[in-house]
Amino acid sequence: MDALAHVDAYWRAANYLSVGQIYLLANPLLTEPLRPEHIKPRLLGHWGTTPGLNFCFAHLNRIITERDQDMIYVAGPGHGGPAAVAHAWLEGSYTEKYPDVGQDARGMQRLFRQFSFPGGIPSHVAPETPGSIHEGGELGYALAHAYGAAFDNPDLVVACVIGDGEAETGPLAGSWHSNKFLDPACDGAVLPILHLNGYKIANPTVLARIPEEELVKLMEGYGYRPHFVSGEDPEVMHALMAETLDRVFDQIADYRQGRADRLPMIVLRTPKGWTGPREVDGLPVEGTWRAHQVPLTRVRDSPEHLAMLEEWMRSYRPEELFDGRGHPVAEVLETVPEGPLRMSANPHANGGELLRPLVLPDFRDYAVEVKAPARVSTEPTRVLGMFLRDVIAVNPDNFRLMGPDETASNRLSAVFEVTDRAWDAETLPTDENLARGGRVMEVLSEHLCQGWLEGYLLTGRHGLFNCYEAFIHIVDAMFNQHAKWLEACRKIHWRRPIASLNYLLSSHVWRQDHNGFSHQDPGFLDVVVNKKAEVVRVYLPPDANTLLSTADHCLRSRDYVNVIVAGKQPVLDLLPMDEAIAHCTRGLGILEWASSDAGTEPDVVLACAGDVPTLETLAAAALLRECLPELRVRVVNVVDLMRLQPPSEHPHGMSDAEFDTLFTADKPIIFNFHGYPWLIHRLTYRRHGHDNLHVRGYKEEGTTTTPFDMAMLNDIDRFHLVMDVIDRVPGLAERSAHLRQHMMDRRLRARAHTREYGEDPAEIRDWTWPY
Amino acid sequence: MDALAHVDAYWRAANYLSVGQIYLLANPLLTEPLRPEHIKPRLLGHWGTTPGLNFCFAHLNRIITERDQDMIYVAGPGHGGPAAVAHAWLEGSYTEKYPDVGQDARGMQRLFRQFSFPGGIPSHVAPETPGSIHEGGELGYALAHAYGAAFDNPDLVVACVIGDGEAETGPLAGSWHSNKFLDPACDGAVLPILHLNGYKIANPTVLARIPEEELVKLMEGYGYRPHFVSGEDPEVMHALMAETLDRVFDQIADYRQGRADRLPMIVLRTPKGWTGPREVDGLPVEGTWRAHQVPLTRVRDSPEHLAMLEEWMRSYRPEELFDGRGHPVAEVLETVPEGPLRMSANPHANGGELLRPLVLPDFRDYAVEVKAPARVSTEPTRVLGMFLRDVIAVNPDNFRLMGPDETASNRLSAVFEVTDRAWDAETLPTDENLARGGRVMEVLSEHLCQGWLEGYLLTGRHGLFNCYEAFIHIVDAMFNQHAKWLEACRKIHWRRPIASLNYLLSSHVWRQDHNGFSHQDPGFLDVVVNKKAEVVRVYLPPDANTLLSTADHCLRSRDYVNVIVAGKQPVLDLLPMDEAIAHCTRGLGILEWASSDAGTEPDVVLACAGDVPTLETLAAAALLRECLPELRVRVVNVVDLMRLQPPSEHPHGMSDAEFDTLFTADKPIIFNFHGYPWLIHRLTYRRHGHDNLHVRGYKEEGTTTTPFDMAMLNDIDRFHLVMDVIDRVPGLAERSAHLRQHMMDRRLRARAHTREYGEDPAEIRDWTWPY
Repeated sequence: MDALAHVDAYWRAANYLSVGQIYLLANPLLTEPLRPEHIKPRLLGHWGTTPGLNFCFAHLNRIITERDQDMIYVAGPGHGGPAAVAHAWLEGSYTEKYPDVGQDARGMQRLFRQFSFPGGIPSHVAPETPGSIHEGGELGYALAHAYGAAFDNPDLVVACVIGDGEAETGPLAGSWHSNKFLDPACDGAVLPILHLNGYKIANPTVLARIPEEELVKLMEGYGYRPHFVSGEDPEVMHALMAETLDRVFDQIADYRQGRADRLPMIVLRTPKGWTGPREVDGLPVEGTWRAHQVPLTRVRDSPEHLAMLEEWMRSYRPEELFDGRGHPVAEVLETVPEGPLRMSANPHANGGELLRPLVLPDFRDYAVEVKAPARVSTEPTRVLGMFLRDVIAVNPDNFRLMGPDETASNRLSAVFEVTDRAWDAETLPTDENLARGGRVMEVLSEHLCQGWLEGYLLTGRHGLFNCYEAFIHIVDAMFNQHAKWLEACRKIHWRRPIASLNYLLSSHVWRQDHNGFSHQDPGFLDVVVNKKAEVVRVYLPPDANTLLSTADHCLRSRDYVNVIVAGKQPVLDLLPMDEAIAHCTRGLGILEWASSDAGTEPDVVLACAGDVPTLETLAAAALLRECLPELRVRVVNVVDLMRLQPPSEHPHGMSDAEFDTLFTADKPIIFNFHGYPWLIHRLTYRRHGHDNLHVRGYKEEGTTTTPFDMAMLNDIDRFHLVMDVIDRVPGLAERSAHLRQHMMDRRLRARAHTREYGEDPAEIRDWTWPY
Repeated sequence: MDALAHVDAYWRAANYLSVGQIYLLANPLLTEPLRPEHIKPRLLGHWGTTPGLNFCFAHLNRIITERDQDMIYVAGPGHGGPAAVAHAWLEGSYTEKYPDVGQDARGMQRLFRQFSFPGGIPSHVAPETPGSIHEGGELGYALAHAYGAAFDNPDLVVACVIGDGEAETGPLAGSWHSNKFLDPACDGAVLPILHLNGYKIANPTVLARIPEEELVKLMEGYGYRPHFVSGEDPEVMHALMAETLDRVFDQIADYRQGRADRLPMIVLRTPKGWTGPREVDGLPVEGTWRAHQVPLTRVRDSPEHLAMLEEWMRSYRPEELFDGRGHPVAEVLETVPEGPLRMSANPHANGGELLRPLVLPDFRDYAVEVKAPARVSTEPTRVLGMFLRDVIAVNPDNFRLMGPDETASNRLSAVFEVTDRAWDAETLPTDENLARGGRVMEVLSEHLCQGWLEGYLLTGRHGLFNCYEAFIHIVDAMFNQHAKWLEACRKIHWRRPIASLNYLLSSHVWRQDHNGFSHQDPGFLDVVVNKKAEVVRVYLPPDANTLLSTADHCLRSRDYVNVIVAGKQPVLDLLPMDEAIAHCTRGLGILEWASSDAGTEPDVVLACAGDVPTLETLAAAALLRECLPELRVRVVNVVDLMRLQPPSEHPHGMSDAEFDTLFTADKPIIFNFHGYPWLIHRLTYRRHGHDNLHVRGYKEEGTTTTPFDMAMLNDIDRFHLVMDVIDRVPGLAERSAHLRQHMMDRRLRARAHTREYGEDPAEIRDWTWPY
């Protein structure tokens, strides 16, 4: 038996096991004729893409074995879940992870039964599937994940199967250009396999229906050397695929060694549902969209369908593939690699196994000196940039900073003192900070930044994604999927913790001075808090030192999504580093120096979260001290938003007693919030003081205007906060009608000033804490 | 003076006006030497892309004039706002829309001053800009908008400038393939102009730095005939652009008449910040990323910068362009088209002007008969499909149905009785329902579906986007931008109302039986309700008849985003059509037949929104009637979610008195909700009864399992609701401990059943209202 016969045996075994998973409850080896009671009552799975995935698996195994090639497999058409599971079972890694699913008839029966079955496993390639870093639910991110996995893994090849459905998505279409960001010397290689089976759920696909010459140009235009493997006769296709893969891996070696400047890719054209039923009930199935899910649907009721299923399964000749006990025979396993070279057991696909902690410089060394609170302004992200610069310097192959062309705009440019932007395309003499292997990944695609970072993290590395706040919504859906991946992994004993996905959202809603309304959206936080509390964290550090402390904490954490919102514009330094650390550790606290309740029960609580709302709150506190000196005002700043929830809702949640101690149970609370105000209500609606809580925040008003005009448009400005206090503290409304009017006048004057001069009044621009 | 000299004069005038907008408060015609007080205090704008945009405008005007060509202009690099404004002012349409900005020196000064100035206009191409259907904030959607505008507009050419930054985004990369969905006979043409000025904010761009031969292949691979216009000498470039445009418009004519099967496109390669300062402070600016925003930043402080600005502005020779009064001279206006042929006044770019109401068949004709409530099941979307079929039939050029390959999966397939899927690529004999000009647009890209529909609506037509609920998050950011567009348009007197953007979210969180966790996310509603109440509407019709009534209402509405969540799986028919209409008109109401409070004050309110939660609520009500017959239970169903808000928050909001009448002010309310439970709290936290409100909903638990197991995983199932009632109705906990245990046992039995048999118990699957 030659190598291709072994590959074919493996392929047939994987196909057999895939069909078994979709259909069978019992009789896994077909030791008796199929009967209706062997069939699952609900047939839930996707056959169409599966034989193609199995074909690639089988052939890549031969390459791994022959070349000792470190390789992982990203299955873009991840609804072909049965393929990945079959593969892991054949390679033995499924049984290693799940010992009750043994490599024998009983284990095979369990394998079949559990698939897409209550209490069993998902129908897609999922976190539960050994060897996967890529959930196959939402399409579009396979190639970005593959490149993310390849960065800084010089010996790795990431084989990435891209379905022709997925290829229609925008994110995938944009991902092809990732090759301009790959360093042949320090990064691994990606082998895209565009699998044209011609159909998605109910339609032909675009790339399957354009002239082949156009497809060649498209792939060459994307910067690849395409190789076509087309056909349906298994014997011919095995020979063609093997020969192509040999050529392709030679070309990858050439690329890695600088002898070729383009990566190869493969276009694999096979029928959808290949080797399945050709025709069912008089309609063509194999090679059409009808093969997408379950080709034979009435197997339990129709003796004819049942017979077709049996014939189909027996066409793989299971008796040649499994021994009497149900164990795969030697011929099937001939091309299966050893130990961690098995794609289903490769540690890169369980990144926590390879995770090296970041070496972190002491963030205290980057502290800004704060002699007195709120007197001097600093750009927080610029300070963070210096910390990140040194993080990059001491972790040269274990950390990447992603951003859609905004790293400098977000004022993190200190990083360019030690590294460059990754770039493997033409450079010109006027270029700055572009180089192969640069640690900063900039491309004008939030999807690519997110996808690369996910792939990088899932294979055991670290990173941070800096983004304009409004445009992080572009990856809402990707965040959702990654959070779900993390949620699922918490219940999977063999998935090892990975570094958290860290977002730094800067250029935020309150400071879009020259971009305006389209750039104003703080709603990503609302999306984030919908995910399980165990995996999400939200921080709004109000100044440079709290940002440093928060960033250090996030970079050390595991298995979370951390969202940090921090401004790039100068804001007043509030806390010396030791107090900043204490404040961040508590997650929220009273700013004693800004409060006038002197440890007694206050008349009103001014709460705030976010840098601009905190500034306005402080200015309001100062106005109140000046104009209503007898009023006892408490200022509470919140850094860790999740502290507001009850402990039953979030691990960071504080008890009602703590909440009441800080916010009181019965005094008015004016909460000045960075984002949409309802989020604060949502987090606190069960608190005693909730009925007294009045939240200001972004209420979807904005344009290109001055910072203070933006605050006024949304009523988060200092003058309006004073008016809110007057309106809500019992008895104050009557006494302070004149002050209220005065505040209103000052707002009008401020607005008139900006409209006259195009900038905020100096006393507002230059305001510092006066006490 | 020949035509190209006129084009050049126009271009210089537009460039002059663009620089003036960025810099000047006064002295608009440079009638005196520039002084610091003529300069704005804050310089906020984007010069880099602007001269290229102006160049295209100028040349396209010649084509329009010479060929009488109906054309609109989509400016992908929309932060080049000064260009679009300059153009509208030169064409006179700015003054028509805003009479106080006249075509004279005073008007020019106002034009300059207002730009990116408090109380003025946004810095981007925005709804305020005449002639635009495309906000230039978030990048990625220009080409999709352009195609959307072209559909069913056979005489229109949509010129679409795509910045090389935007070209890196996924959505844009995927949009090129829109040409496979264009019908040369019935649709207009799109002319993509890929503008390679080489840089984004701080980086070179990918497409500017790949070999030209690769770029040619890429464009040919996308199915276009590329034409290159490259250089920087204005005279040479004018000749080259004019000659190229003549050829290109000939090719478009050939394409339209079936003599060519590929659309042309142009690659325009010019320096970033073309004609601006070449070098500032010893650093190159023109032709680099430094030209992105404001090339000279210290104009007010530095006499040298001030002089450079004056020299720059005078380089356009304003004295040749404007007469003494500041009006553009005849030579400048020579190529400006007449009336509605001006791109800044084209009615397609103010789609409401062209809007024809949909012809709507009577939705009552599609009603399912309901002899008794909740006895018979129907697939709601299948019924809707019949209504949509006839909508399509009687509106053959005014309505499109978009969906990412899910129209059949979402069970709207009746539409294929009268139309096909739009398809202009290869077809095979086995294909079904593919044809040029099909009214159904299916591509596996939510971005394209959304972008096409936006472009279609903004040019005055109608449509509906059907999507899997979880994956609508893919277009969260696009929804945000469209909602912001609608919000802004409400304040713009000349923007005419357009048809609402209608979403049908099906294949929802509760019925992902074979897809599982990755397909479970009802959080789009949370994103939607962050936008201004004036433009967002959310409906959860619980059955077929309420879905029909809701859909009819939405299709008639204007200027909203309507989100309809409705299942495709069979659900019990609750209401005969007349009651369904009344129920939808109220937006919520008591289901009398399911309630046992007989018009008196109830002991508990069971509220519900969404089809599956409503089913479980009804089953719980039946269980309570059986087991606790003395308990007075009120069942309230909510269709229009916005009714829950106070009227101060949303126009649909109901008064506290109404709310109390329905929900009581003091009785326990168990609210079974389709989405994340916090949304209901967020909408109702100010209500009297809020402290008694207990919400069940999706709490991020799920996998591939049975429908009832999904309900149990998230505690929205009938048994758990009964337990909730027992726990919350005063005095019931003690009396009904046994019943509570019984409910718990029934849950356990149901779960054990699904895990044994792989399907829900028959008494749950087949449950109907028993009274």
